[in-house]
Amino acid sequence: MFSTNTYASRRNKLKTQVSEGLLLFLGNEESGMNYTDNTYHFRQDSTFLYYFGLDKAGLAAIIDVESGEEWIVGDEITIDDVIWAGPQPTLQEQAARVGVVKTLPKSALEAKIKGSLSAGRSVHFLPPYRPEHTLKINHWTDWALSDIPQKVSVEFVRAVINQRSYKTDEEIIELNRAVNISGQMHVNAIRATQAGKYEYEVVGTVHGTARSEGGDLAYPIILSVDGQTLHNHYHGNRLESGRLVLGDFGAETAMHYAGDITRTWPVDKTFTQQQKEIYQIVLEANINVINALRPGITYLDCHNLAWRTVVEGLKGLGLLEGDTDEMVALGVPALFMPHGLGHMIGMDVHDMENLGENYIGYRDGLERSKLLGLKSLRMAKELETGFVLTIEPGIYFIPELIQLWESQGKFQEYIQYDKLNPYRGFGGVRIEDNYLITKDGAQLIGDPIPKTIAEIEALRS
Amino acid sequence: MFSTNTYASRRNKLKTQVSEGLLLFLGNEESGMNYTDNTYHFRQDSTFLYYFGLDKAGLAAIIDVESGEEWIVGDEITIDDVIWAGPQPTLQEQAARVGVVKTLPKSALEAKIKGSLSAGRSVHFLPPYRPEHTLKINHWTDWALSDIPQKVSVEFVRAVINQRSYKTDEEIIELNRAVNISGQMHVNAIRATQAGKYEYEVVGTVHGTARSEGGDLAYPIILSVDGQTLHNHYHGNRLESGRLVLGDFGAETAMHYAGDITRTWPVDKTFTQQQKEIYQIVLEANINVINALRPGITYLDCHNLAWRTVVEGLKGLGLLEGDTDEMVALGVPALFMPHGLGHMIGMDVHDMENLGENYIGYRDGLERSKLLGLKSLRMAKELETGFVLTIEPGIYFIPELIQLWESQGKFQEYIQYDKLNPYRGFGGVRIEDNYLITKDGAQLIGDPIPKTIAEIEALRS
Repeated sequence: MFSTNTYASRRNKLKTQVSEGLLLFLGNEESGMNYTDNTYHFRQDSTFLYYFGLDKAGLAAIIDVESGEEWIVGDEITIDDVIWAGPQPTLQEQAARVGVVKTLPKSALEAKIKGSLSAGRSVHFLPPYRPEHTLKINHWTDWALSDIPQKVSVEFVRAVINQRSYKTDEEIIELNRAVNISGQMHVNAIRATQAGKYEYEVVGTVHGTARSEGGDLAYPIILSVDGQTLHNHYHGNRLESGRLVLGDFGAETAMHYAGDITRTWPVDKTFTQQQKEIYQIVLEANINVINALRPGITYLDCHNLAWRTVVEGLKGLGLLEGDTDEMVALGVPALFMPHGLGHMIGMDVHDMENLGENYIGYRDGLERSKLLGLKSLRMAKELETGFVLTIEPGIYFIPELIQLWESQGKFQEYIQYDKLNPYRGFGGVRIEDNYLITKDGAQLIGDPIPKTIAEIEALRS
Repeated sequence: MFSTNTYASRRNKLKTQVSEGLLLFLGNEESGMNYTDNTYHFRQDSTFLYYFGLDKAGLAAIIDVESGEEWIVGDEITIDDVIWAGPQPTLQEQAARVGVVKTLPKSALEAKIKGSLSAGRSVHFLPPYRPEHTLKINHWTDWALSDIPQKVSVEFVRAVINQRSYKTDEEIIELNRAVNISGQMHVNAIRATQAGKYEYEVVGTVHGTARSEGGDLAYPIILSVDGQTLHNHYHGNRLESGRLVLGDFGAETAMHYAGDITRTWPVDKTFTQQQKEIYQIVLEANINVINALRPGITYLDCHNLAWRTVVEGLKGLGLLEGDTDEMVALGVPALFMPHGLGHMIGMDVHDMENLGENYIGYRDGLERSKLLGLKSLRMAKELETGFVLTIEPGIYFIPELIQLWESQGKFQEYIQYDKLNPYRGFGGVRIEDNYLITKDGAQLIGDPIPKTIAEIEALRS
């Protein structure tokens, strides 16, 4: 946990950003897996953590913008709770730890919210992303379930994004920690790879490493010889000689800051010539973007720089023909890189995604494109000092997508469909690092881990 | 997945157990962790798996009891789904794999359910344990949210319990597999234990082992030097010489059958004299119950046999004085073992707990006790051939509970409170195995793993 003052000053700033009313913060509940009491590991809501730091289930919080009053809402534990879950500080003690003076039992929350509404004051809340949040708001306000999405407070959303987007020094320390654990997970995975093993055996190494460092996964592990499936969570394939493994995974620290690294490595100890050729293009795209990072550049331009590098590289291999700028403008490279270049990262791996990507990554005058690839670009606007982002270009050979486009004759003047056959079963390559935007450029988060072909191969010798 | 015939014949039997109407099976959705798309690992509903076997998010199923018709309800995937999540069989192909002929798009479900209700037919559903289930039922029926718990079909609940309680040979094979992985997790944990490490380092070994075998955890890992906290999910303590580690964890296989083992071992390579004395009593309780297992005995009697063994043992150490039967009848041993002896296990670690413990473990004429310990006894009724259960007695020294009872003068004629001081900081001991009830006794699930003091110590040498 950060210092009491950190949380108090974050809240003080927030109070100046919203005009009137109550701010309602919904902490998360335990989440039942196959029955109520068999829960997934508890994950607190990130915005709740950002302003109130308390990492326990079943809490809420309120800020009265005008009076400045703050309440932690929750119930005291019973002796049965002590027997099953261990002793805990009182709610008052927990609140004091993060600089909040007042507490309120859960049963008093409904009256407080309804009282405020009937006095004509706003009750601001953020977009509910767990169904229990929707049920709670319905219960506390009597708003119809179907009306709740329209009642979300855009003013509150913008105020939170305006704080959480700029990472402070103490947050950078946590992010470095998260990325370093993530790096160790990758080094261990690459070393554990061996033809004949199953993907899940390497997954065990990866997950075990994350937990051994006191945290857990920041997101579900992607580790597959079918790297062309972008978010592949199947781990039942055997690692066959000749194939590539794409690993996209990262840790979240005990304080819930995330790391997000992707590396791609061969099942064998060395890359094949074909693998090297594709890998090198992706590596160049990754490095070109990193060299371009600075305040003021749009992330859309960074994405297009990656696409341009991919196009140039694939032209060199004869898979594309024609004018690079034309192809980028038309979205031709989406056949090979049908996803966005990256996203903000912080307490959430896609930071603040629950608040709405368009509020985070876009602005007035910068609308999201509908083109394949660009429609998944989570961040497009100008970069600013203090932003932390992932840079994750890739090249994939997705049989179903190639087949679809070819059958439609799509971009056939550029794409040399007949030359794609040798890449069936290739899979995909993605290379991803995390960067902090600084005053005059960008800085790698975490210590460097192997990234070039030579460095990756050296891990296996 | 089991054979097509397995699922079809389970459903055919079910149809004979419910009198009329539609049976509605709610498959689970992906469960967002800190935003919608950052999900916990997907866990299908166990009853859905039992009758329909399909391990994918976003499905439902219906059986028309009178006509015998069956539908898998879901939507076909798009090219975007292929890009992000990989190619999949069509819904029709998936349904055929489990012997279901008809499919229905999700959009058609509401009309089907409302049509059935307005024709005066029942729509049977099981108790919703995830908030999205409640929201769906509300949407499909227009029943008020607060009315939904009362609308649960007890007839459907009883019919499902009447099938899932009796494990078939093919299920026993899966349970053996789950328990064997769980055993390996324990052996690895005991071997990885070393003074100076942190609990989470051993937790990493445990979780990594589960995933390396292709499954995942059956429930959150309990691994703590504070074993007196029964469901302790905190792993930040340092393993100090002189303390005990209580580890309660198990794997679930890729087919979602669970193992559930507890072992207790010293941080050091050997137990202290005090630890040995308590351990031996718990081991005797464990073995006494196992020897008593057979069809016809009530599990309540088994629980009381464990309590009796604990009382006798603690009398031997001078911590209790008086008549054993009296103490058991009054619930005195709950100070040391404030939980039930065990529970059914199958696809759920507490099998079918979402259907209601009292339907599973109790019957007319056998009401649940309100005494500490017994109120947490999930299973009390007569054992039958084919039941699979955990046997998990324990002894704990819970400072807060001892202090509470002592301050109330509770059972002071039996409990020698002044003799409990040397056990402050002892923690707890629990020893748990999984047993199948057979025609003439019981059979251990999985291969034996170290259990006696000598066997545990031998793992460390």
